[in-house]
Amino acid sequence: MNYFEQSMQLHAQLKGKIELRNKFDVKAQNDLSLVYSPGVAAPSKAIADNPALVFDLTMKANTIAIISDGSAVLGLGNIGPLAAIPVMEGKAMLFKKFAGIDAFPITLNTQDTDEIVGVIKNIAPIFGGVNLEDISAPRCFEVEDRLQDIGIPVFHDDQHGTAIVTLAGLINASRLVNKPLNQLKVVINGAGAAGTAIAKLLRCVNQNPDLCESVAQILICDSKGIISRDRKDLNKHKIDLLSFTNRDGVTGSLREALKDADVFIGVSKGNLLGREELALMADSPIIFALANPEPEIDPLLAKDWGAAVIATGRSDFPNQVNNVLVFPAMFRAALDMRVPVISSRMKIAAAKAIAALIKTPTADNIIPSVLEPDFVPVIAEAIKQAEQAGIVSL
Amino acid sequence: MNYFEQSMQLHAQLKGKIELRNKFDVKAQNDLSLVYSPGVAAPSKAIADNPALVFDLTMKANTIAIISDGSAVLGLGNIGPLAAIPVMEGKAMLFKKFAGIDAFPITLNTQDTDEIVGVIKNIAPIFGGVNLEDISAPRCFEVEDRLQDIGIPVFHDDQHGTAIVTLAGLINASRLVNKPLNQLKVVINGAGAAGTAIAKLLRCVNQNPDLCESVAQILICDSKGIISRDRKDLNKHKIDLLSFTNRDGVTGSLREALKDADVFIGVSKGNLLGREELALMADSPIIFALANPEPEIDPLLAKDWGAAVIATGRSDFPNQVNNVLVFPAMFRAALDMRVPVISSRMKIAAAKAIAALIKTPTADNIIPSVLEPDFVPVIAEAIKQAEQAGIVSL
Repeated sequence: MNYFEQSMQLHAQLKGKIELRNKFDVKAQNDLSLVYSPGVAAPSKAIADNPALVFDLTMKANTIAIISDGSAVLGLGNIGPLAAIPVMEGKAMLFKKFAGIDAFPITLNTQDTDEIVGVIKNIAPIFGGVNLEDISAPRCFEVEDRLQDIGIPVFHDDQHGTAIVTLAGLINASRLVNKPLNQLKVVINGAGAAGTAIAKLLRCVNQNPDLCESVAQILICDSKGIISRDRKDLNKHKIDLLSFTNRDGVTGSLREALKDADVFIGVSKGNLLGREELALMADSPIIFALANPEPEIDPLLAKDWGAAVIATGRSDFPNQVNNVLVFPAMFRAALDMRVPVISSRMKIAAAKAIAALIKTPTADNIIPSVLEPDFVPVIAEAIKQAEQAGIVSL
Repeated sequence: MNYFEQSMQLHAQLKGKIELRNKFDVKAQNDLSLVYSPGVAAPSKAIADNPALVFDLTMKANTIAIISDGSAVLGLGNIGPLAAIPVMEGKAMLFKKFAGIDAFPITLNTQDTDEIVGVIKNIAPIFGGVNLEDISAPRCFEVEDRLQDIGIPVFHDDQHGTAIVTLAGLINASRLVNKPLNQLKVVINGAGAAGTAIAKLLRCVNQNPDLCESVAQILICDSKGIISRDRKDLNKHKIDLLSFTNRDGVTGSLREALKDADVFIGVSKGNLLGREELALMADSPIIFALANPEPEIDPLLAKDWGAAVIATGRSDFPNQVNNVLVFPAMFRAALDMRVPVISSRMKIAAAKAIAALIKTPTADNIIPSVLEPDFVPVIAEAIKQAEQAGIVSL
C-alpha cells in the first residue's frame, strides 16, 4: 500500500485522530460535586470576580483553536470545511505531540472575511491562542490583521511558519556561502500567504536595524512577473508590498528578477527553473524551491548546475522547510508567557534559534530535522528569552 | 474543607479538567506522513468527493460542542463566558464519563441572539451535535428554534433534560398514587427555560395521543401569577404558552392555581410553599420542588404535611431530578443514529426509559440514581428503538 491507501485505512479505523480525555476520574457522587455542581461554583465565582484567574483554573492556559475556512487546504485548494477536518486533526496531533498543547480544530461554514473575524472573536474566551490554517490569500492577511487586538495571539501558520523556517535556513545558507545577510538580493516567486510573509519578515529584519542585520534587496514576483509600480493590475495587498520591495523599480519577468540574485525563494508552482535561469543568478546561488509536491527546480539537477544550497518543502530531500519547526514552539512560548500577540521579535528569535540548532552548517544541513530530539523546548525558550529581554540580535 | 474549598483546590491543581489526546502515537517520519501531509490528502479528497464520509473518517461522528453565552450559569446568573468555563468543562467530563462522547466547551463573547445563531452555524462542520447550556430565557428558545435546520441535532439541556427527567418521575409518581397521567392537573411554577420545556413536553404528550396518554390540564405561573389571557404583561413566548395551558382561563396567584392540583412542579425560586398551600391541592399531592439550592418546600416537612411523593434537584434527598440521566444517553443515541434533530419521540422515549429503570416505584424511589450502573446504554437503546420504529407508547 502507498501513503494514501495506508492513510485512508488508518483514518477509517480511528474515526477521528484526536479525542477528549478527563484529567480527573469521576468515580463517586462526591467527585461529581467537585468537578460539577455544586462545587464548580467556587472557581466560576472566583473568575467572575477576577477574570485573570481563568488562566489558573481552566483549560484556557494550554488550549488553542486551529481554525480553517477550508479555502486553501494543503495542495488540494478550496475543498471546504468538511474535507479540511482530517488535515486540522493532523495538525492538532502535532501540537500535542511536539508541545503538549491542546489544539482543537474548528472548520468554518463561511469564507466571508467579516464572518470569520466575527466567529473567532466570539469563540475566543475558552482559547489561549488561535492558529489560523489553510485560509487563502489575500483574505488571510485581513483576517489575521483584524484579530490582533482580541487579547490572545492569532497566528497564521501558513504565512509565518514558512517565513520563519525560511529565514532560519537563509541565516545558515548566508554563512555557508560567505555572503552576509545584509548584502543579499532575494527574489521571492509567489505573492500568496507564504511569499508575502517571507517578504514581510525580511522587511521586518530591514526595519529593525537594532534587532538584526538586514537583507539588502527584495523582489517579489507573481504569475505576471515582478511586482513593480508600473503594474496596473495590483490589488491593495500587492501595492502594499511595494513599500518595502523593489526599491530600484525593476520591471519584467521572473527571469529579469533573477539577474544577479543571490537567493531564489519559490512558494508558488513547481518546475519553473532550469539551467538557464540558474545561470542568471549571482555566484553560489541559494535556492529555496518550496512548491509541493513538485519543487520549482529539481534539487539534484540544481546542484549539478551550480546551486550552492538547496532547500525544499519535501521530507525526502535535505533541508526541508517544515513548519513543525515553528508552530509548536511558538505557541508553547506564547501560552507560557500569556502574550496577547506574537511579535516580530518572537518570529526572528524563532528563526535564529532554529538556525542555531545546527552548529556547523553544510550544503545538506542548513535546516534541522523535525526528528531532532527536544527541538521544541529549545526554540520555545529562545523565543521567551528574546521577548522578555525585549531584544534580539543576529 | 467544604465542597467549595476542595473544588478550588482541585481546579487550581488541574488547570483544566479535560485535555486532548492523540489516538495514534506519531513516532516516526512515516507516521507523520500518514496522519498529516502528504497522506492526509487521501481522506480529505474522499470527503470532498463524498461529504457523508466525514462521519467515517473524522472525529465529527463522536464530537459535540457544549455552547454557552454565560448568561444563566447554574444558580450564579449572568457571569459571562470566562467564569462559565469551569462549568462547561465539568459538563464535558460527564459526557465523556457517562457516554464516551467527546464534548468540547465553547463559551461565547456575545449574548446577541443573531450572533449566537450565526456563530453556531459557522462552527458546525466539525461537530456531530450541539448541546446548548446555561443560556437565559427567552433567548434560549429562539436560539434553539433557529438552529433546528443546520443538519446536526441542537439540544438545550437546561430545557429538555429537566423536562424529560421530570416526565420520567411523573410517570412513576402517577402510578404510585393511582392517578393516570391523563387525569392529572399540573401546576408549573416558573416560565423560564425549564418550566417552558416541561409544559411543552406535557403538551407534546397531549398532542400525540397515538404516542402516549395525555396530561389533563396544565397551569403555568410566573412571578406575577397564573399565565392567563387577561394578563397584559406577557411577552410573545408566554403568550405562546397559552395555546396549550390554562384551557379554563383561570386567573390569580400561584395559590389559586394550586386548588385541586394533583402535581406541583417548581422550577423558579425556593421556599415558596407551606402547609397551607399543600392543603389546597388534591389528595396525595405530587411535589417536584426543583429550585436549587433551596427547594420550594422543605422535603421532610412536605411529607409530614401529606405530600405523597417529593422530588428535588438535590443529591442529598431521594428522587433527584438530575439531567445526567438524559444528556449523555440522548446525544449517544443521536450521534449513533446521525439524526439531524432530536425529536419529541426521542424525548418521550427517554423519559419512559428512565422511569422503567425502576421496577417497583416507591415514594422514595420514582427517579433512578445517576450512580445506577449502565443506565446510559439502556436509555440510549430505548431512544434509538423508539426513533427507528417511529412510535412510542406509555
